[in-house]
Amino acid sequence: MLPTDGRERVQIEGVWPEIDGGRFPIKRTVGEKVRVEADMFGDGHDMISGVILYRPETSQQWQEAPLSPLVNDRWEGEFTVSEMGSYVYTVMGWVDHFKSWRRDMTKKIDAAQVGPVDWLIGAELIEKASQQASGQDAEQLNTWVATLRSHCNESNGILEDKALSQELAALMAKYPDRSFATTYEKLLKITVDRERARFSTWYELFPRSCGTPGKHGTFKDCIARLPYIADLGFDVLYLPPIHPIGITFRKGKNNTTVPEPGDVGVPWGIGSSEGGHKAIHPELGTLDDFRDLVAKAADYGIEIALDLAYQCSPDHPYVREHPQWFKHRPDGTIQYAENPPKKYQDIYPIDFETEDWQNLWEELKSVVLFWIDQGVKIFRVDNPHTKAFNFWEWMIGEVKQTYPDVIFLAEAFTRPKVMYRLAKQGFTQSYTYFTWRNTKWELTEYLKELTQTQVHEFFRPNFWPNTPDILHEFLQHGGQPAFKLRLVLAATLTANYGIYGPAFEVCENRPIREGSEEYLNSEKYQIREWDLDSPYTIKSMIARVNRIRHEHPALQSNKSVQFHQIDNDQIICYTKQTEDSSDLILVVVNLDPFHTQSGWIYLPLESLGLKPDQPYQLHDLLNDAQYTWSGEFNYIELNPHITPGHIFSIQQ
Amino acid sequence: MLPTDGRERVQIEGVWPEIDGGRFPIKRTVGEKVRVEADMFGDGHDMISGVILYRPETSQQWQEAPLSPLVNDRWEGEFTVSEMGSYVYTVMGWVDHFKSWRRDMTKKIDAAQVGPVDWLIGAELIEKASQQASGQDAEQLNTWVATLRSHCNESNGILEDKALSQELAALMAKYPDRSFATTYEKLLKITVDRERARFSTWYELFPRSCGTPGKHGTFKDCIARLPYIADLGFDVLYLPPIHPIGITFRKGKNNTTVPEPGDVGVPWGIGSSEGGHKAIHPELGTLDDFRDLVAKAADYGIEIALDLAYQCSPDHPYVREHPQWFKHRPDGTIQYAENPPKKYQDIYPIDFETEDWQNLWEELKSVVLFWIDQGVKIFRVDNPHTKAFNFWEWMIGEVKQTYPDVIFLAEAFTRPKVMYRLAKQGFTQSYTYFTWRNTKWELTEYLKELTQTQVHEFFRPNFWPNTPDILHEFLQHGGQPAFKLRLVLAATLTANYGIYGPAFEVCENRPIREGSEEYLNSEKYQIREWDLDSPYTIKSMIARVNRIRHEHPALQSNKSVQFHQIDNDQIICYTKQTEDSSDLILVVVNLDPFHTQSGWIYLPLESLGLKPDQPYQLHDLLNDAQYTWSGEFNYIELNPHITPGHIFSIQQ
Repeated sequence: MLPTDGRERVQIEGVWPEIDGGRFPIKRTVGEKVRVEADMFGDGHDMISGVILYRPETSQQWQEAPLSPLVNDRWEGEFTVSEMGSYVYTVMGWVDHFKSWRRDMTKKIDAAQVGPVDWLIGAELIEKASQQASGQDAEQLNTWVATLRSHCNESNGILEDKALSQELAALMAKYPDRSFATTYEKLLKITVDRERARFSTWYELFPRSCGTPGKHGTFKDCIARLPYIADLGFDVLYLPPIHPIGITFRKGKNNTTVPEPGDVGVPWGIGSSEGGHKAIHPELGTLDDFRDLVAKAADYGIEIALDLAYQCSPDHPYVREHPQWFKHRPDGTIQYAENPPKKYQDIYPIDFETEDWQNLWEELKSVVLFWIDQGVKIFRVDNPHTKAFNFWEWMIGEVKQTYPDVIFLAEAFTRPKVMYRLAKQGFTQSYTYFTWRNTKWELTEYLKELTQTQVHEFFRPNFWPNTPDILHEFLQHGGQPAFKLRLVLAATLTANYGIYGPAFEVCENRPIREGSEEYLNSEKYQIREWDLDSPYTIKSMIARVNRIRHEHPALQSNKSVQFHQIDNDQIICYTKQTEDSSDLILVVVNLDPFHTQSGWIYLPLESLGLKPDQPYQLHDLLNDAQYTWSGEFNYIELNPHITPGHIFSIQQ
Repeated sequence: MLPTDGRERVQIEGVWPEIDGGRFPIKRTVGEKVRVEADMFGDGHDMISGVILYRPETSQQWQEAPLSPLVNDRWEGEFTVSEMGSYVYTVMGWVDHFKSWRRDMTKKIDAAQVGPVDWLIGAELIEKASQQASGQDAEQLNTWVATLRSHCNESNGILEDKALSQELAALMAKYPDRSFATTYEKLLKITVDRERARFSTWYELFPRSCGTPGKHGTFKDCIARLPYIADLGFDVLYLPPIHPIGITFRKGKNNTTVPEPGDVGVPWGIGSSEGGHKAIHPELGTLDDFRDLVAKAADYGIEIALDLAYQCSPDHPYVREHPQWFKHRPDGTIQYAENPPKKYQDIYPIDFETEDWQNLWEELKSVVLFWIDQGVKIFRVDNPHTKAFNFWEWMIGEVKQTYPDVIFLAEAFTRPKVMYRLAKQGFTQSYTYFTWRNTKWELTEYLKELTQTQVHEFFRPNFWPNTPDILHEFLQHGGQPAFKLRLVLAATLTANYGIYGPAFEVCENRPIREGSEEYLNSEKYQIREWDLDSPYTIKSMIARVNRIRHEHPALQSNKSVQFHQIDNDQIICYTKQTEDSSDLILVVVNLDPFHTQSGWIYLPLESLGLKPDQPYQLHDLLNDAQYTWSGEFNYIELNPHITPGHIFSIQQ
């Protein structure tokens, strides 16, 4: 079958970014650039031109950004996304007869081969362009046409400079002949989020532990805690599930299966006679109290993030109202969660193979919409990899169509391809393996994967040194220096990071038993009292680090991270900088929480935008010390008991 | 919008091979394997299963090949294509509840957690499978169901071995529950050619030089030359254009623009009053003569390949009959070919931007169909990169739909992406940069690109040491040893290769001038007489090399080529072997045509399928010498005046 127009001669391929053949969008935040590359070529010797076409998905009006040739038939261009929501982009190329004519004329002039007809060919091309133009441009082009035609027989060189002038070329470039332009066959997508999707600082807190000693904490107590959290410099306050907690098979302290009276249960065991995912655990307060918390937090520049854990306690209203959403066993009982030999009888997983999946999906979406109505725009999603992938793609897509400012953080600690798939399917941010990456080699390789491969286009890492589920042995054994160095790494390696507090700032490091990553007396199962005023907390350092992040745009995105050589495997050294090089940060961290480590750092000054023959100033933002360095090699010595490292701002 | 079925829980991505997101087919020949890999995973802990689905495009019946897990959620499988034409394939995966049940039961048994309901769950799954089965299988499955149900309360372990037996697992695997199976969203394509697309030996010959001295050669003379060509071992005889040659601006000997009377012109200057692309140059004979040549060649196992050069001399009938297919200049003249400052006034290129492109395309296709009607199934396409790419994709697609056995060789010596694009769009084989790759590093890197990257899936290289357009300086200066070593390289590095003869076998090495790759007294412009019986030809060596190629399947495909270390940059060393390792060829070539070179070769015996602790026999197929080697390091010495190298068959 013949194509629509066989005269499209330009071929376009190798377009980048393009995730899985265009199946998934890339991600950006408002104001960020999208750099596009493509292979583009035509047949024969004709020259070509091309543009990127882009627009918000809802707009009918294409915008254009020029493509410039690199080498080897590769072209590049860039544009900026200025609105939240979905964008689409593609590439267009065409044979540019005027450019070809201009190039050939130069060669013919050099070879003294120019005849009248050569000028007339140019005149024809300009005349065609003039038909697209109007006003002064049209006039000017027509003047050119007349000049070329009237002087084409003169061999006195009168036309040579004029017709090949940059001026005419620029004018002609405004009116390209795209009659036979090729548009790349795919429309590629961008999800454009607000800035917090790229740069956010999270604090996780169990509200029930915020009360006065011996009492169950409430949202009101959380409100009282807000100044503290704001002082520490956090802008997202993430609460574990705030819904009624089930009674049946409730777990006791330290995950015992036999609870004692008064045990408060696991917040992730959602649902009781008091309600399910749209209800509030009565001991925390009322929906009004919650809305009040959201509003008061906003006054401090803090957003409340809720936990989205799509699972039910046996007492959840869904179990009674929608039994078809759960898997029933041949004996009539509902299948509880299990991963043999482990049993989680307090949890009924949702059966995503239910025949009633449409209603299920709609209901699950309505949970999100309900909390959006209460002012929540950030959701930390519990174990998304144990729910149907396609549900997430649909649900997040639907929600973001109406609320493009909603952020979903995927809490999937599982195999890499699964984690990346969830990000492709719509999650805004993702938990990572950071907690288990403690050596220089591990951190370097992991950051390269996250920032220098295609992963960067769709996966926004959010680094957590600890969570209620993970107290890594590095923190168990490394003392306060371990907490400090992991804080500096998390806060400077990626623009999104968070801590589970107050366990983190008080350096809680006791596991339930040696070899386990579970906390002793975990807040998952009981209320904890924390001594926030102890002189041993690292809260002032946290506040400092967060202030540095806010003041230095280099730390507010990930792509620029670059690791540098140092002759000591216990010291990691990297820079981050803004695209315009106005902000340059050098981070040096001693990965050994026990011993002083030292080494010679090598910095490739020129590639960092520094003049190699001039000294440069380093301001250690952690302690305000000032240094002047010269040359590419400099000595560093770090005592972990004094400081975990340096966060230098470099200027020259 | 909700998906069709939200219960499809398996995700499939990273399918390979997949060229440009499935935009282009991969290539195979009949009987070859297609190895497919895919990333495949489901949510949660459930196990999954998957298959490759494939079929000839015209068939409605899917065939299946099983997928097996590799690591990291990657799966692989393979199938064989058995018919010429187009195939399609894709990947299907599903959550496998029986596999999950079986795995979990093993764990529960170990943990002594099995209750009656666990057996009943298995019984349900088996019962469901039995509904798909019939005959003995159904009976057997129903027996299992009954057994499980009747013994589910017994804790004496009676069921444990039975229900988890390999026997039941195998039976259940025959009746998978694919109700919610996911099929990968793309249907990927394969172009399946006949064997000659993969393995062919070309000889290029100017028929007009085949006559008796002083006379214009004819097809009858070509027929007389067939035994010679067959003796040399070639199976494709490629003729430059056989059509009437234009008179206007005809080129004289050595490309002069002022021809002498009697100058025969350039065969690529196609078309005269005697006809165009469907006519025969009268001095070569008649259409009947040509058909006779095709038939006689077939008797020798030789196919005739024609040159497809879509361009016209000013005297071509198209110029008169279809002036709209050419570009007209403002002075009314037709635009001749040019690449300033070069002019080719004897050639009118076709204007692929003509408004009448539909008729043009149909006419160009009809040229191919005309020659197919005369028995031609192989076309060497002249400069395809100077004609519209989309035309090729359409034309080759159309022709191969009816004649899947037609082979198109792309003669595009241009930028890499352009050459690869043409191959993607349908060319069966392609000329390459081989002629300009003469050092070990160049050859190694180039072969890796051709055989070990995705290029291998769509681009079939055809190596030519010389063509009428290219007499490389290596041949100009290296004497007979240079011709011999380039022959061995071309014939053993790739399964498709060709020479332009008799210039090659008589070792014609005179350029038109120093620094040029053009032949002196090139046959493009004049008739040449060649002394085929001179004792200085290398025809016996050519015959030998071609026989070796025919006898050794290892040399009949490219993918297995593997380069080996030798401590001398002038010696290149590589092996090729069949997939079953039954044929193992070691080639060692001295790249220096002047001096004896020697070195120690390192062979990784184990990875070549040889036992490292036992000696192995080498039979030099070029001279029948026999050697016995032991161990991984062995010494080689090559005098280029005696032999260009070795082609060893290795056995143990």
